[in-house]
Amino acid sequence: MVTNLDQIYSISISSMKRSIIRELLKLTQRPEIISFAGGLPSPDSFPVSDLQSIVSEVLKNEGTQALQYGATEGDPKLRKLLIDRYIKDGLNVKVDNLIITTASQQGLDLLGKIFINRGDKIICGLPSYLGGLSAFNSYGAECVGIPLDNHGMRADLLDEKLNELKQINKMPKFIYIIPDFQNPAGITMPESRRIEIIDVAHKHNILIVEDSPYREIRFNGKPQRMMYELDGTGSVITLGTFSKTFAPGFRIGWVLAHEEIVDKFVVAKQSADLCTSAFVQKIAALYLEKGLFDINVNKTINSYRQKRDAMLESFRLHMPHGVTWTEPEGGLFLFLTMPEHMDAEKLFPKAIEKNVAYVLGSAFFCDGSGKNSMRLNFSYVSIDEIKEGVKRLAEVIRQEM
Amino acid sequence: MVTNLDQIYSISISSMKRSIIRELLKLTQRPEIISFAGGLPSPDSFPVSDLQSIVSEVLKNEGTQALQYGATEGDPKLRKLLIDRYIKDGLNVKVDNLIITTASQQGLDLLGKIFINRGDKIICGLPSYLGGLSAFNSYGAECVGIPLDNHGMRADLLDEKLNELKQINKMPKFIYIIPDFQNPAGITMPESRRIEIIDVAHKHNILIVEDSPYREIRFNGKPQRMMYELDGTGSVITLGTFSKTFAPGFRIGWVLAHEEIVDKFVVAKQSADLCTSAFVQKIAALYLEKGLFDINVNKTINSYRQKRDAMLESFRLHMPHGVTWTEPEGGLFLFLTMPEHMDAEKLFPKAIEKNVAYVLGSAFFCDGSGKNSMRLNFSYVSIDEIKEGVKRLAEVIRQEM
Repeated sequence: MVTNLDQIYSISISSMKRSIIRELLKLTQRPEIISFAGGLPSPDSFPVSDLQSIVSEVLKNEGTQALQYGATEGDPKLRKLLIDRYIKDGLNVKVDNLIITTASQQGLDLLGKIFINRGDKIICGLPSYLGGLSAFNSYGAECVGIPLDNHGMRADLLDEKLNELKQINKMPKFIYIIPDFQNPAGITMPESRRIEIIDVAHKHNILIVEDSPYREIRFNGKPQRMMYELDGTGSVITLGTFSKTFAPGFRIGWVLAHEEIVDKFVVAKQSADLCTSAFVQKIAALYLEKGLFDINVNKTINSYRQKRDAMLESFRLHMPHGVTWTEPEGGLFLFLTMPEHMDAEKLFPKAIEKNVAYVLGSAFFCDGSGKNSMRLNFSYVSIDEIKEGVKRLAEVIRQEM
Repeated sequence: MVTNLDQIYSISISSMKRSIIRELLKLTQRPEIISFAGGLPSPDSFPVSDLQSIVSEVLKNEGTQALQYGATEGDPKLRKLLIDRYIKDGLNVKVDNLIITTASQQGLDLLGKIFINRGDKIICGLPSYLGGLSAFNSYGAECVGIPLDNHGMRADLLDEKLNELKQINKMPKFIYIIPDFQNPAGITMPESRRIEIIDVAHKHNILIVEDSPYREIRFNGKPQRMMYELDGTGSVITLGTFSKTFAPGFRIGWVLAHEEIVDKFVVAKQSADLCTSAFVQKIAALYLEKGLFDINVNKTINSYRQKRDAMLESFRLHMPHGVTWTEPEGGLFLFLTMPEHMDAEKLFPKAIEKNVAYVLGSAFFCDGSGKNSMRLNFSYVSIDEIKEGVKRLAEVIRQEM
């Protein structure tokens, strides 16, 4: 074995850690634990039996193409079907505006490869999705956090921060935003705030990354137009995925962007993994084409809505005064905040002792704040588990208060 | 649209180009062209009908797990099956020595992420696989080429170059080698040379990357032991894949390495794409388990052997004196060298005019040499096309001579 291994690793890998969430999840695998910690879709949402016939049809009609290398840009039919959906939603886009990625996480990684030099800054929410932050960090990005209010990222504070950074010649490469049912906060940005953020971005001549994995999973309220559409100038890069609406096990995501930017994604993806599995793309395309996708998403929405409602109801019943939470209009998560003096990390072993688990809110704050918060997932667990789990969690919190 | 887009791209993407090969391939798509340019497996090698029942069984017995997120390390059963094969081959390895990647190209990319800081050097063959070089380049690596002889990379020249680089304090991060049926040269390194290279690496305390996508596809001659086995100290990182033996459309590869290094791959992969598709991994595992993989590889070997023989025979019949070629014992490619003064790039449009295509050999030489060479693929085309294509190519070369 080479003797100086520690010295030959890159700066990049030396600064990276195993995902806190994925490591925490290992602690929460005991069957007696009710875990709100993960971010998994419900297995009930997977269209296993529909896929039997879909896969069989793909193998029968386009088997050799499905098993062969595919285009880096993605399967032409799948790209067209996705673009058609966006056009139906009112977006002015064409096939060249979209590239298929190996799930959204690859989209985040390629963003890093395309835009970030070591030491570059990017803007994110306080809190923001950990998988995004760690992808950007792996390219040496320094994340600058902007606080959220009930409407998402504060546009006034964003403008202030950008002015400040411009003065020291440290303009960030992009603003990273999850406008719908934000992970972890569960907040949805209304159109008015989206427009304010876009105006600030235009003023400062800076790109916006709109990470949108949950958009289709809305329980109530009116869909807000995508930032991609509201911008209309090609300054927004949107990331989509099937991981929350269809099958995370397929690893299919996509990036919607100005075609010049898509072209950079193609070049970056060629060296990252050449192409995404043609097999799963062809399955997904046929599934979409047959209209099964929308039927299944509606079923999933109904199921998750009941779970969210059960969680909110249990909170109202059991949580001690002083504890607050977000009430998401969609998605998979909500965010719970305890009184200022409390610490979710200290509480964690006590929760595990009571057989209930969550993710520390602080993991999502790039400035290390948020110690009194936690993220709770309601998609994976059953309604009975939600009721029992919240009861246990409330007890742990009450005892600590 | 932001107005300064060209200025905000990373150094990395600004230095990357679309793959020459993939762009060339677009020129060779006309149906009348016989193309030796690609690197695709034959569609006949894909076990389409076997997969009908395999996929159906996976969906029936483990459907929800197949559609869910999987472990970053890979599907436990698939890892175990692959490790068992290596153990049967005589390697001293266990499951912790292996991580599944989204095909070999991701293994190459993650190698870059784990080891390369901008300006670091790596050693490669002259010529060497373009996809490896471009992945390393995307992290800012500077490739230092070592000439090959009939037995692969020259160990004496490697030693000399490492001495030289040590003196200027520029030790490379690793030596990149494709020991079996090298792409593009079609050369196989005998065990004696493998041992010489390993001795040089040990002397200089440097890692070896053994890229091994073609190893299973041997037509004749005795398998040479893997460098991973010959080293035995954990200084070799081996990359494997199903892309040439099973189905490139599944995008499944793996990395075999010391467990400390595998651990770095896990961390790097978490931010690159979280995990490889559980669906395709479970299909591949069942396919291996049922013994269908080996049956199909043997069928593929027989078919490719006939194709290689047809190409060599056609060369002997048609190529003008002064043209030489390698006679690979396996794999998908051979390498053809024209007289010194000739230029495969200048010849290319004339070949296309005659409806035959190849890849420029110079694309594989990191020092820009190899202008009089070309890589020819024999796996994708039919035997009749090989005969006709070689005839056309020989005519183009003869006219130019």
